[in-house]
Amino acid sequence: MLVGRVIGTVVSSNKVKSLLGLKMLIVQPVALETQIAVDDYIVCVDDVGAGLGDLVFCAYGSSSRQTDTTRDVASDYSIFGIIDSIDMRGSRVYDKAKEEG
Amino acid sequence: MLVGRVIGTVVSSNKVKSLLGLKMLIVQPVALETQIAVDDYIVCVDDVGAGLGDLVFCAYGSSSRQTDTTRDVASDYSIFGIIDSIDMRGSRVYDKAKEEG
Amino acid sequence: MLVGRVIGTVVSSNKVKSLLGLKMLIVQPVALETQIAVDDYIVCVDDVGAGLGDLVFCAYGSSSRQTDTTRDVASDYSIFGIIDSIDMRGSRVYDKAKEEG
Amino acid sequence: MLVGRVIGTVVSSNKVKSLLGLKMLIVQPVALETQIAVDDYIVCVDDVGAGLGDLVFCAYGSSSRQTDTTRDVASDYSIFGIIDSIDMRGSRVYDKAKEEG
Amino acid sequence: MLVGRVIGTVVSSNKVKSLLGLKMLIVQPVALETQIAVDDYIVCVDDVGAGLGDLVFCAYGSSSRQTDTTRDVASDYSIFGIIDSIDMRGSRVYDKAKEEG
Repeated sequence: MLVGRVIGTVVSSNKVKSLLGLKMLIVQPVALETQIAVDDYIVCVDDVGAGLGDLVFCAYGSSSRQTDTTRDVASDYSIFGIIDSIDMRGSRVYDKAKEEG
Repeated sequence: MLVGRVIGTVVSSNKVKSLLGLKMLIVQPVALETQIAVDDYIVCVDDVGAGLGDLVFCAYGSSSRQTDTTRDVASDYSIFGIIDSIDMRGSRVYDKAKEEG
Repeated sequence: MLVGRVIGTVVSSNKVKSLLGLKMLIVQPVALETQIAVDDYIVCVDDVGAGLGDLVFCAYGSSSRQTDTTRDVASDYSIFGIIDSIDMRGSRVYDKAKEEG
Repeated sequence: MLVGRVIGTVVSSNKVKSLLGLKMLIVQPVALETQIAVDDYIVCVDDVGAGLGDLVFCAYGSSSRQTDTTRDVASDYSIFGIIDSIDMRGSRVYDKAKEEG
Repeated sequence: MLVGRVIGTVVSSNKVKSLLGLKMLIVQPVALETQIAVDDYIVCVDDVGAGLGDLVFCAYGSSSRQTDTTRDVASDYSIFGIIDSIDMRGSRVYDKAKEEG
């Protein structure tokens, strides 16, 4: 799954029915170790109530439609979790609590 | 999902049955913040009546077949919404109303 | 969908059952505006009777198996249409009739 | 399938239901011949009890949900095996037993 | 579909059930015209009894699970054919018989 930071929103009133009422967030992919942006943005349906600045993970393709909220949704990327911490090679490289502290 | 601008059409009379009657539009992917073209073109089935110049979002793969219009359609990209506005890091970076004003 | 030109064939006698009797064509992706080759080749199952030199569009993944011919076929790319014309930003950039004329 | 080394973990308490109780590991893709890292990291659901340092293979997309553990899971990458050995062009280029010995 | 040459094997004793008894081969993608390697390796389930040195084609994603052998298999790439010949722009650029002759 892709890891990125929520940095914005996309609003559309003229969209297909299954997307009505769903929030579309802009996620900027980051390098896991540094959380520095590494790529352009992707637009995701939000399934966990993520907010601006949250570090999240997202699933793509048919995998993005595996929850009650996203089943049959006309979207190819969904946010499925907000990240608490990342450990790499024995070190904590991200800690949500500290970032917010 | 991918965000891009509609910039053309592809016409084919010799195509598989499920695509008959569907409009195939050319979408040029853009950077979200500037809406400057970033990539070559993709060809999408249109599910929202998009027109030339519209900024749209598109879903790929099995996700592109999740509406009544696109179910079982022999295509791997569909336009599922016309974008009204994009906000990034607290600023409005795209506003359809202003663009058209 | 990907747009490309048919430039060859792949023949295999030792292949899985569902591919028996199907033609596998080599498609070279092109830039839409100029129809100049932009990438290496892909191998597609042909569903429209395309011939050498035809400009075609192709669908990928599960989308490549959405017709009677291709349902359950063990292939991930199918040619689903021969292109008559391409219009971009108000200009006709490709016209099959003229090319053949 | 992708081959990589397990180098970390991602923890999330606010995630969708189907992921509860599943371990999310960070896998760094490697070149098969040298097992040197070639790319950024991916986040995978673990289905084989892989540990830090293990060389594993991972499946993507709908293929990542083909086991009892992963069926309907909201994730797009799963670890489905720990690698014992890799042979290329007649030479053993990786041997788990020697690495651990 | 991707075309490549079989250049090795991956062995794993600790893998998910549906992969038990299946051979995992390493395929190196090649340029069609010259059959020169163009990319890193992929790991595929073999469905046609391919051997070292064979030029094969492989399907990805859900397409890789469309045969009796591969249905529900936890893998995202399968070898579905051994190539006899490749013709491009009117010339035979690959001929298995000559290569072996």
